[in-house]
Amino acid sequence: MKIKLDSPLDMHLHLRDGDMLKRVAPLSSKSFAGALVMPNLIPPVTDKDMVEDYKTRILEAAGDESFEPYMTLFFKPEYDYDFLKDVKEKILAIKLYPAGITTNSSDGVDNFSVEALAPTLEAMSELGIPLCVHGETNGFVMDREAEFIPIYERLARRFPDLKIIMEHITTKEAVEALMRYENLYATITLHHLYITLDDVAGGLLRPHLFCKPIAKRPEDRMSLRKVAFMAHEKVMFGSDSAPHPRDKKEAPGCAAGVFTAPVALPGLAAIFEEAGVLENLQKFVSDNAQKIYGITPPKKEVILKKEPFEVPESYEDVVPMFSQQTLPWRIESVI
Amino acid sequence: MKIKLDSPLDMHLHLRDGDMLKRVAPLSSKSFAGALVMPNLIPPVTDKDMVEDYKTRILEAAGDESFEPYMTLFFKPEYDYDFLKDVKEKILAIKLYPAGITTNSSDGVDNFSVEALAPTLEAMSELGIPLCVHGETNGFVMDREAEFIPIYERLARRFPDLKIIMEHITTKEAVEALMRYENLYATITLHHLYITLDDVAGGLLRPHLFCKPIAKRPEDRMSLRKVAFMAHEKVMFGSDSAPHPRDKKEAPGCAAGVFTAPVALPGLAAIFEEAGVLENLQKFVSDNAQKIYGITPPKKEVILKKEPFEVPESYEDVVPMFSQQTLPWRIESVI
Repeated sequence: MKIKLDSPLDMHLHLRDGDMLKRVAPLSSKSFAGALVMPNLIPPVTDKDMVEDYKTRILEAAGDESFEPYMTLFFKPEYDYDFLKDVKEKILAIKLYPAGITTNSSDGVDNFSVEALAPTLEAMSELGIPLCVHGETNGFVMDREAEFIPIYERLARRFPDLKIIMEHITTKEAVEALMRYENLYATITLHHLYITLDDVAGGLLRPHLFCKPIAKRPEDRMSLRKVAFMAHEKVMFGSDSAPHPRDKKEAPGCAAGVFTAPVALPGLAAIFEEAGVLENLQKFVSDNAQKIYGITPPKKEVILKKEPFEVPESYEDVVPMFSQQTLPWRIESVI
Repeated sequence: MKIKLDSPLDMHLHLRDGDMLKRVAPLSSKSFAGALVMPNLIPPVTDKDMVEDYKTRILEAAGDESFEPYMTLFFKPEYDYDFLKDVKEKILAIKLYPAGITTNSSDGVDNFSVEALAPTLEAMSELGIPLCVHGETNGFVMDREAEFIPIYERLARRFPDLKIIMEHITTKEAVEALMRYENLYATITLHHLYITLDDVAGGLLRPHLFCKPIAKRPEDRMSLRKVAFMAHEKVMFGSDSAPHPRDKKEAPGCAAGVFTAPVALPGLAAIFEEAGVLENLQKFVSDNAQKIYGITPPKKEVILKKEPFEVPESYEDVVPMFSQQTLPWRIESVI
């Protein structure tokens, strides 16, 4: 059995910088036609020059002309209309992080009053720049996403023409909120379709499955699966693949992030096939994102074949999801 | 400021065996007059000879005449009256593990029908041997303890003369159940008085704070604190101190267990003082257990002083709770 995917897209990707960028960019460009690249470097990507320079470094590292890095800016409430107009052609979206909520987010937003954010969000709305949001409060770890929903709702109501993407949603509550507002969209990761907190901490503790937002309850995963498997037009694939070297994961303080770039398409094929909805994968992994963002990615045809794929223990010093496990699908060819 | 503790007891302790036993036993005997020693070795402690031999090894490792290892047997539904009568003088309690629920528990119980357990529990009841229970189902990790409560209740009702100790309770629901039955008692650990899931997985992931049952929600911790701080006569201190070498904790699959033996008394003094209930510590850490189990431990006077205690990074290759942190209380002397 085979399936052909046209120009698969990963609409939430961490490529980091320097050596790590060189290590992981080819693992995304190998099977994706494009990816929305997160701006949480140190320091974060906050102006046009930084965007251009980072994009150049990514293209060089990826070494693949049929891979488009869609760039993002790290949200700052200081951005004004003129600044945004000038940078608009270079970016696809702006990513908002609450301060301190995940890796390299200490420069994020700590005041979510609409008034504080209004000038920037109004300008983005006028200019048609989507807002991507890491939607978590700093509350109890299992409640953070649900607690953030009133903020999503306030923003969705106040800026009805602004496309707001709820990034890497993990809860039933987020899926329900998504459906209530026309201008809300969402990305869903591979790992949140697969795992719950049980996989992270129910048996032995699994640092390589530890991520933010943390994997939630079985009923939450069920909600995510439902909208992903039907390829609901409001949801799209965003891996949130986040590489950390092994010594930052198997450590007394383990960094958040699951590395899925090289296993994402086989992993998705396996779970979509199991659910009997393989025919919806094209929409989930490309068509929906093209419509939501209004983009036409480079042509790239990925053929997946139902044959065992023995996932490497690691890619250099980065341990992937499914490390040393066998997935039932593998990438046969990419044209 | 100083406080004197008479014969402090740790009513739930893992001492392991071999080199690890030699490493950790002195760290308990140094400040405790006795400890209830868990039987989940490989293979588990299941007969009189094993109990006697293990006790001999513990006494040798502890090297302290004023330390009493109170021994337990690993519960098996095969134990009959004659067997239990013969072993009774050598043990203080029998510990029941659901199969596969924690470290070295694969030989545990997988059938909780009262009928399956009745012969052994009736014999224990007649002989006055308390039953210690690791009360978790194999459900979702945050729900396991609450899901087990109907089993506690069934046992408490069916065997009203059997003392049942709910080990290392972590939830509001367990505290409530404890209060509903005269023959239920509970141990509470140091770490569950301190941490919630936020401390384990809310920031970086902290493998050295990963344990079973997993730390729960803030409102659960509040319930535990309430009964511990008032030294409710149904609760007693049981550290569940569980040493693992560093390479089993900082690993792709991290073993469950927090090592608290050498920091337990200073840690308790700090949190009891903060709550303004230092005068209740004696009951929580010794008197209640003496009454519940009907024991008179060796005399041991521990003087704690309010002076900074810089907790070592590790004890050989075992990393303790509060590693490299400073506790406000230290052990001044032990007589």
